[in-house]
Amino acid sequence: MKGMILIMDGLGDRPLKELNNMTPLQAANTPNMDKIAEKGINGLMDSIKPGIIPGSDTAHISILGYDLYEVYTGRGPFEASGVGFDVLPGDIAFRCNFSTADENKIITDRRAGRIRDGTKEIVEILNDMVIEGYEDVKIIFKESTGHRAVLVLRAEGEKELSDAVSDVDPKKEGKPPKKVVAIDETVEAKRTADILNKLVNKSYEMIKNHPVNQKREKKGEPPANIIIPRGAGAVPEVEPLNDKYNVKSACIPETGLIMGIGRFAGMDIIEIEGATGGVDTNLDNIVDVIVDHAKGDKYDFLLINIDGADEAGHDGNSKEKLEFIEKVDKIVIEKLANLEDCYIILTADHSTPVSFMDHTADPVPIAIIGPEIRVDDVNKFNEIEAHKGGLCRIRGSDVMDILMDLMNNSTKFGA
Amino acid sequence: MKGMILIMDGLGDRPLKELNNMTPLQAANTPNMDKIAEKGINGLMDSIKPGIIPGSDTAHISILGYDLYEVYTGRGPFEASGVGFDVLPGDIAFRCNFSTADENKIITDRRAGRIRDGTKEIVEILNDMVIEGYEDVKIIFKESTGHRAVLVLRAEGEKELSDAVSDVDPKKEGKPPKKVVAIDETVEAKRTADILNKLVNKSYEMIKNHPVNQKREKKGEPPANIIIPRGAGAVPEVEPLNDKYNVKSACIPETGLIMGIGRFAGMDIIEIEGATGGVDTNLDNIVDVIVDHAKGDKYDFLLINIDGADEAGHDGNSKEKLEFIEKVDKIVIEKLANLEDCYIILTADHSTPVSFMDHTADPVPIAIIGPEIRVDDVNKFNEIEAHKGGLCRIRGSDVMDILMDLMNNSTKFGA
Repeated sequence: MKGMILIMDGLGDRPLKELNNMTPLQAANTPNMDKIAEKGINGLMDSIKPGIIPGSDTAHISILGYDLYEVYTGRGPFEASGVGFDVLPGDIAFRCNFSTADENKIITDRRAGRIRDGTKEIVEILNDMVIEGYEDVKIIFKESTGHRAVLVLRAEGEKELSDAVSDVDPKKEGKPPKKVVAIDETVEAKRTADILNKLVNKSYEMIKNHPVNQKREKKGEPPANIIIPRGAGAVPEVEPLNDKYNVKSACIPETGLIMGIGRFAGMDIIEIEGATGGVDTNLDNIVDVIVDHAKGDKYDFLLINIDGADEAGHDGNSKEKLEFIEKVDKIVIEKLANLEDCYIILTADHSTPVSFMDHTADPVPIAIIGPEIRVDDVNKFNEIEAHKGGLCRIRGSDVMDILMDLMNNSTKFGA
Repeated sequence: MKGMILIMDGLGDRPLKELNNMTPLQAANTPNMDKIAEKGINGLMDSIKPGIIPGSDTAHISILGYDLYEVYTGRGPFEASGVGFDVLPGDIAFRCNFSTADENKIITDRRAGRIRDGTKEIVEILNDMVIEGYEDVKIIFKESTGHRAVLVLRAEGEKELSDAVSDVDPKKEGKPPKKVVAIDETVEAKRTADILNKLVNKSYEMIKNHPVNQKREKKGEPPANIIIPRGAGAVPEVEPLNDKYNVKSACIPETGLIMGIGRFAGMDIIEIEGATGGVDTNLDNIVDVIVDHAKGDKYDFLLINIDGADEAGHDGNSKEKLEFIEKVDKIVIEKLANLEDCYIILTADHSTPVSFMDHTADPVPIAIIGPEIRVDDVNKFNEIEAHKGGLCRIRGSDVMDILMDLMNNSTKFGA
């Protein structure tokens, strides 16, 4: 027996006036998701716990059954791992933005005009960076998608580093990079904060006149002339998912962050051609890969993340969110709803209401289909009907245990 | 005000094709259980937590409000206590099978032909066992029902023992007893492992020619000629239930295991004549004893376990399970549904789906009747309707607290 969890990132929402007090998922025409609700058992899920706003990373870690409060050390290590960085225990990893700063180092665009090309070339220059007085700390950048990059600080000498440092990101335009401070009293934290402050300034000096930026400025585009790190995290080590649950698992992600979660859990990563993490992603390719692996022998557990609904939520675009949901329903869910000998869990990692344009803690619907499921009366897959189902309200940390039990792939506690 | 929890062991199930996609409980004609659902408040219960498969022992410990992860030390001590063994702190207890071994000590029948008679006589011989080099360790066997026995190792000298040892049981026929190894680095665990390895060999030498076995072999029955221990556990000590909840409690069990749970919790044990733990048990005697004590003054809290549905589930027999449920409904529940001044909780410890023939983590229905209950709309007692009730989905560890609160036998946390 096989199992999969399909996570529609940021799917959950709140009732919107513009949609006649319905959520985008409620208002969308989703016959196939509704078929899963009808054939399955339904409920609400809080990926962390009620009222706690999940990140995509923390939600996925919880849903994979890891104790968040034990293993989560900030987003940096997951993002770094996600872009294929071989992070090591002891490394301190950060997410970075390429941003635009003016000559007074005031941030004028946090995302450098959502730069798409050229960051790889800029990173090549940045990777020569050495901070005076910290020659034993290796500074490694790697570009991610768009304006995103990761930074890893690796102590190669005897003096260690710490992730107990504040963020550089001022979060608003019109402000300078925030001065990093140690958030505990250790010498390692003070050392790391000092390195970061110097690194931010140095990045500006090293790349402000980079050819890529000169070209951008000529075209009237904001240059990617400063690095803004945030989300410091020491690299965690956990029991691989395959050992933890006795499965052969693969992760089918769209974004570096979810790829990083998959790597963190020791899962095989299946990259999909044309997957963008946006509403323009190639859903046909995604569903083909899912179906192939659901029918094949290589894996018995798949974690799939489809990101577009989250992006539309962050953009505050209800029409785009609704249309993307309908597209996923038609292209992806229709084929999955007919798979046999497979438990399918359809859910989200969190809500990203278009009215709020960011994550909220509103719980998300979850539906499970498969052999001998205790079918309930729910026949619509959405945030409002879900609680009437037989799962009631569960947590992300219950999901793998429930799935493994249904797959008869679990062991008794006791006798 | 009085209270009782009636646990129908293994009652929960999954929808079965042979029952028109109903569970045995759904398909059974149970007017009295349904009356309890109708007059009461309903919900689903995970005796441990969602997705975790409970044993009967761990489920009962949770439902009695003890912290499982703190007190559960393996099945041995509960089984030993259940057969009337006065286990002491420091004792290491094991469940054992009488098995059949050939002259090469390969196990040819793990249950010695499901031997029914003669194990008491064999145990008398075994209780003379002394292991060379470990003369200060008392070795005590006691027969249980059928092919089952318990073993207690009691250190009478200064050197202690440990439960950190692996099992002897090879779990399959055609294999020799497994060599016991220490599963931690302590000298106590190594000592205990060494004792067990010698004990298994010695048991064969001592009983292979026992008159009971000679008689069995003459009749062509597999002899009970070797002892196979498993489930090592150090004896736990907990606050008696009567102190923990300020009650006068009794346990009305059918099996040694549940009797052991009752003793562990310091409850009085009421043994019932004709209670077999099977579908052939004497339900009339069981209900008479329950009603007597519900009306009497000696106890204000009763825990009752009726085992037959679990046995039918393990046997994979849906007809037997359904019919046993109907029998309990008619003989037991009818009389209980009319008791006054008593809160009655009707539930199960776990599901034992006939399709899987072992425990699963599917939650079980729970219904509570009694004065001033918040009656909900549910009017059928089964796995599918339960979640629509006013209890939603609770855990085993909530049950005693809810009951004590309803009985007005609880104290405020705070002011």
